[in-house]
Amino acid sequence: MNSIAIIGLGLIGGSIAKAVKNNSDIKVIGFDIDDETLFAAKELGAIDKAWDGHSILVADLIVLAMSPSATIEFLKTKIDSIDKNAVITDVCGVKAAIVSDCIPLCSEHGLEFVGSHPMAGKEFNGFKNSDANLFYNASYIITPVQGTKPQAIDIIKELGRILKFRKLTVTTPENHDRMIAFTSQLPHVLAGSYVRLPPCSEHEGYSAGSYNDVSRVATIDENLWSELFLLNKEEICSEIRGLISNLSEYLVAIENNDKEELKGIIKSGRLIKERDIK
Amino acid sequence: MNSIAIIGLGLIGGSIAKAVKNNSDIKVIGFDIDDETLFAAKELGAIDKAWDGHSILVADLIVLAMSPSATIEFLKTKIDSIDKNAVITDVCGVKAAIVSDCIPLCSEHGLEFVGSHPMAGKEFNGFKNSDANLFYNASYIITPVQGTKPQAIDIIKELGRILKFRKLTVTTPENHDRMIAFTSQLPHVLAGSYVRLPPCSEHEGYSAGSYNDVSRVATIDENLWSELFLLNKEEICSEIRGLISNLSEYLVAIENNDKEELKGIIKSGRLIKERDIK
Repeated sequence: MNSIAIIGLGLIGGSIAKAVKNNSDIKVIGFDIDDETLFAAKELGAIDKAWDGHSILVADLIVLAMSPSATIEFLKTKIDSIDKNAVITDVCGVKAAIVSDCIPLCSEHGLEFVGSHPMAGKEFNGFKNSDANLFYNASYIITPVQGTKPQAIDIIKELGRILKFRKLTVTTPENHDRMIAFTSQLPHVLAGSYVRLPPCSEHEGYSAGSYNDVSRVATIDENLWSELFLLNKEEICSEIRGLISNLSEYLVAIENNDKEELKGIIKSGRLIKERDIK
Repeated sequence: MNSIAIIGLGLIGGSIAKAVKNNSDIKVIGFDIDDETLFAAKELGAIDKAWDGHSILVADLIVLAMSPSATIEFLKTKIDSIDKNAVITDVCGVKAAIVSDCIPLCSEHGLEFVGSHPMAGKEFNGFKNSDANLFYNASYIITPVQGTKPQAIDIIKELGRILKFRKLTVTTPENHDRMIAFTSQLPHVLAGSYVRLPPCSEHEGYSAGSYNDVSRVATIDENLWSELFLLNKEEICSEIRGLISNLSEYLVAIENNDKEELKGIIKSGRLIKERDIK
């Protein structure tokens, strides 16, 4: 791979640009709708060259680092500006909805699209928070479908290695969405539900690590995350319902002063987590 | 203050012993029902002297670093072995239930009891995990009642300073219990409810910081925490109900594809957390 184009230089796109420049000799072409961001990325050496948004975009790999709706919109409006040899990927936190729109769009134009999801982030957005080490120790999930060319998957895997992910996971878009509803979306729903409880405003002086951990990701952007939740509706609703059901088990045991039942519930959680950290 | 006795050398008691030895010239007397722990604490210099459990215990301050039931049991069975000049405190995560038992028990014997709660911990227990720096940057909550002698409160505050807490909070036992239900107990209920969801066993390769943060404290001991939840029944049940209600708001908005409502919910959480970290 000799060149990568990154469309959207926010937290994720900016971090990909910086990591590729840090960890390889690959040429990085960047684009952002915000001119100041594009200028800053060029000045800081995070990209070698800015794309003008109109001329033919030539790169071995094009990474669409935008929200789901902007990713699909970009392909709909700009696909004729993309050189036919490029493999295209995205960074969205949902995969079934993305690949079902993007793969047909791309194949009609002779382009190969492979969905992927860098499982990394921060509670703050934008190029100014981007970081060449964002992906170190994180997981990268690649979601090919039947018919995806092996060479295209290999290019995405190569990106994963350049970004220094700890783990590459290849799975179906549907399994990705089921797992991500639990590992990522539910904690974000939880953080928002938690900080909206009345005592939150008085927590100072009464809080420690547990408070910080549960509330941390409540800072998410409502435009992006409302898209992500709605595009993964069945899976996230299923996890929220499951969590409410589990919380209700604690509630009933405590209300009934049923110490043995309560101990059993706490113990089953402890055993799961202990196996997890072994 | 010239001497402190610590009854129970687990994670909290052991950490208090080590911190007092590290940060002051105060003599530390220790006791634990486990002889090996007591021996290890002496060998490591965490305590100057072991109490034998029978002779008169003489110290300016006695810290009962045990579970609620063991704390009350200790006072019921050993109070005649305590020198009348000692101020007594505990470290329990609930306060109204503790002080309502311990204050009468102590005052009948001419002893002053002041409840307190070091808001620090780890997901692993026992003396082997104790740490002289456990309280650094944490909060210490002191819960006197009407009639508590100011000199006794001053001694507990002095302990807080020696342990290098970032913040000392003085409040009523009832307000402590209300706040702690939100800042500490609810995250523990949550962690257990979360890891008991079916996808948890498959999280490897799909999880990142959010998963780790929410699940971290699921390792709690069921004997201690079933006591703590049941002794703070009304407050923890109220917080669980509130959380279920907030989760249900997300659920309904997502089920109804109501993007504007969903954005409003996410945004209100974001604004609360952003104010919090400013």
